Amino acid sequence: MSGIEAMKTIKLGMCGLGTVGSGTVNLFAQSGGAVNRRAGATLEIAHIGARRDNPLCDTSNIRVSRDIFAVVDDPEIDIVMELVGGTTVAKEIVERAIRAGKHVVTANKALIAEFGTELFELASEHGVALRYEAAVAGGIPIIKALREGLAGNEINWLAGIINGTTNFILTEMGSAKRAFADVLAEAQALGYAEADPTFDVEGIDAAHKLVILAAIAFGIPLNKNAVYTEGVTRITPADLAFAEELGYRIKHLGIAKLTESGVNLRVHPTLVPQSQLLSRVDGVENAVLIDGSAVGPTLYCGAGAGAAPTASAVVADVVDIARELVADQLPQVPALGVDPESIRPLELVSMDEVVTPWYLRLNVYDKAGVMSRLSSILSDHGISIEALIQKPPVRGEATVAVVILTNPAQQANLMSAVAQMEALESTTADIMCIRVENFKA
Amino acid sequence: MSGIEAMKTIKLGMCGLGTVGSGTVNLFAQSGGAVNRRAGATLEIAHIGARRDNPLCDTSNIRVSRDIFAVVDDPEIDIVMELVGGTTVAKEIVERAIRAGKHVVTANKALIAEFGTELFELASEHGVALRYEAAVAGGIPIIKALREGLAGNEINWLAGIINGTTNFILTEMGSAKRAFADVLAEAQALGYAEADPTFDVEGIDAAHKLVILAAIAFGIPLNKNAVYTEGVTRITPADLAFAEELGYRIKHLGIAKLTESGVNLRVHPTLVPQSQLLSRVDGVENAVLIDGSAVGPTLYCGAGAGAAPTASAVVADVVDIARELVADQLPQVPALGVDPESIRPLELVSMDEVVTPWYLRLNVYDKAGVMSRLSSILSDHGISIEALIQKPPVRGEATVAVVILTNPAQQANLMSAVAQMEALESTTADIMCIRVENFKA
Repeated sequence: MSGIEAMKTIKLGMCGLGTVGSGTVNLFAQSGGAVNRRAGATLEIAHIGARRDNPLCDTSNIRVSRDIFAVVDDPEIDIVMELVGGTTVAKEIVERAIRAGKHVVTANKALIAEFGTELFELASEHGVALRYEAAVAGGIPIIKALREGLAGNEINWLAGIINGTTNFILTEMGSAKRAFADVLAEAQALGYAEADPTFDVEGIDAAHKLVILAAIAFGIPLNKNAVYTEGVTRITPADLAFAEELGYRIKHLGIAKLTESGVNLRVHPTLVPQSQLLSRVDGVENAVLIDGSAVGPTLYCGAGAGAAPTASAVVADVVDIARELVADQLPQVPALGVDPESIRPLELVSMDEVVTPWYLRLNVYDKAGVMSRLSSILSDHGISIEALIQKPPVRGEATVAVVILTNPAQQANLMSAVAQMEALESTTADIMCIRVENFKA
Repeated sequence: MSGIEAMKTIKLGMCGLGTVGSGTVNLFAQSGGAVNRRAGATLEIAHIGARRDNPLCDTSNIRVSRDIFAVVDDPEIDIVMELVGGTTVAKEIVERAIRAGKHVVTANKALIAEFGTELFELASEHGVALRYEAAVAGGIPIIKALREGLAGNEINWLAGIINGTTNFILTEMGSAKRAFADVLAEAQALGYAEADPTFDVEGIDAAHKLVILAAIAFGIPLNKNAVYTEGVTRITPADLAFAEELGYRIKHLGIAKLTESGVNLRVHPTLVPQSQLLSRVDGVENAVLIDGSAVGPTLYCGAGAGAAPTASAVVADVVDIARELVADQLPQVPALGVDPESIRPLELVSMDEVVTPWYLRLNVYDKAGVMSRLSSILSDHGISIEALIQKPPVRGEATVAVVILTNPAQQANLMSAVAQMEALESTTADIMCIRVENFKA
């Protein structure tokens, strides 16, 4: 071949041909040449397993099986892309592929969050890679940044907008002053939210992603039961407006923090200062802010979902593995970025002990002495007031809104104060409590 | 050892013990255990070559030679960190280390931008890695993101705040309405700017970094002569205020774009819309915005310089190499992220042909008909006006400021219009011209 060495061909199998699958087929069709240059190999989608075709991509030159497992069992396939989703069939696919000595790329956060530990071990036993960049924050290469790019740092904390659906909903509620249910319906119509939105709006999806990020950040086991999870369903346009007035925005964050008493993992609506770029990441965008001991805070933003962005992450993993295959070598980067032998659980900090400033919105009856009673309850608990908004009474309404921004307070203590406030005759029993994060070291 | 395998020890040599060197020594002293977990090896700084000690770090347990080359020639050393800077001694260190079969990590953008091609080839011949994450944007893992994390994308363009000194100066000039020279003096006092600030304020440092980013993004050779370079010295507080009024901020950007006629590389002050997060990256922070064909725009922000952030990037490279050494394997990721055989120059787009909107600030004599003459010159050139500010005359001043924001115009055409405007008797001959980027696809 006149001095030019032929590039090695690496055969890819794809299980599942939904949004991400069709995006990946299209990516190779459009940018395959560029990807091959990066991989140093010819990457070829050689076999797709899918119960039905997807009109969003052209698979006419690819072998397609209706039996998804035909791909896993195909001896020609070097790398299996698991794009089925869920944790039943997907788990079987991944396990069977690993046992057959194939490398695996998955976009499945639930699978990694729930079964990552055993799957990584299985992959390690069989000397194959199991990669999952697409599982968190779509196309943003956040797993690689945390696992490799920041390897010189001890991670102090990270905080991310890691669910595009809730970020879209909060952004719309804030900018258009529309109610949650109204915006949710629009998000569903636009395809940003599922018919059953529970997974997104209750924070379960974000919790899965946070579990993965925290395991890499702190070298702890994947533990989905460790995450305190609170959704966005109770947030009102009034809260978004008050937050704005106080110099904040409300974002639905996944937060992982290392403290002296252990690790704290939580997903909840959060007031973020407007001066912080994270507060300005809007719509379906995702972003992760990571505080490293050496580098300080670094921020990563981009598309967190969608066919092409997710395919971008899947293909990056495929290229990583292809580079290893070209060099005829074994995977070098541990699945969670640390020597598996060194993974140790850390004490979980109970939410009762977590200290943050708080945003409280109360409805009080417009009577003399209310404010004095509220502030003495806080004062009795040793909680001081950072800012306060009391709006003039609206004609015809029995109550007025009072918003209090507290200084940092331990949650148990704050909740005790809130219970006393709610017990007051002058206050209605529905105080809205939202945590604040100022992201100071 | 009761079943526990001893971790391999990897010996690091350090050439240069300035800011980055001392930061790296301190990083290992503080976080060595965490880094070892990530590397899967015991990393040990075993030999430092430096002409003098640095009181910012403790090297009492490390062998120190006054002859920098003693480190390179030390047979015990596996990885050499070149932290000398410059392109003379540094080049010799890197070459000699590579020839001795050692892996090399460098923080030296000038060295990579000027001599990267030959050094990468030499490293490849000798089967060693030459890594340079610290060369661009300090602690932000931007080389890794571009070379690996976005490997599934064809890069359309990238734009970055890649010099902290100019970003600090522009931020201060804007927020405190202070003149360039004044803020520069403060930056020098704070250690953000060198005694001779030319390298930073004239954009040369940013051009070096842009050359590296563009080579990885487009798979083109490193070519420092390809970059159009314009500094920030002519920008005035008035320009920053007018930009703000128009909904923009002025940032000193390095921009690399792929167009149908080739590639365009430029460093210059740029109006960036306030809606774009990049416009809100302030002070000495760096940020790079990358537009990939699949993922769309992704943004990476963080500390672009300083001892600890730069050390973070150096150590990330060391960990990457250590992981390969532990597995007893050769470097897999090509230095510029693509198969070196496939690196091809692209046609350079001449600046004359570059199309952007423009910000023009003129001083005009306050006479009837001036605005009509200006707008007919633009109109004759087919350039339309997007926005215009004319301030009322200031008592005692002969001229008034007029600011014009144009629609996209080819540079040669715009410059011809500007020359005609400057030739008018009613206009002073010093029109300030600044490019605008809206970052639309």
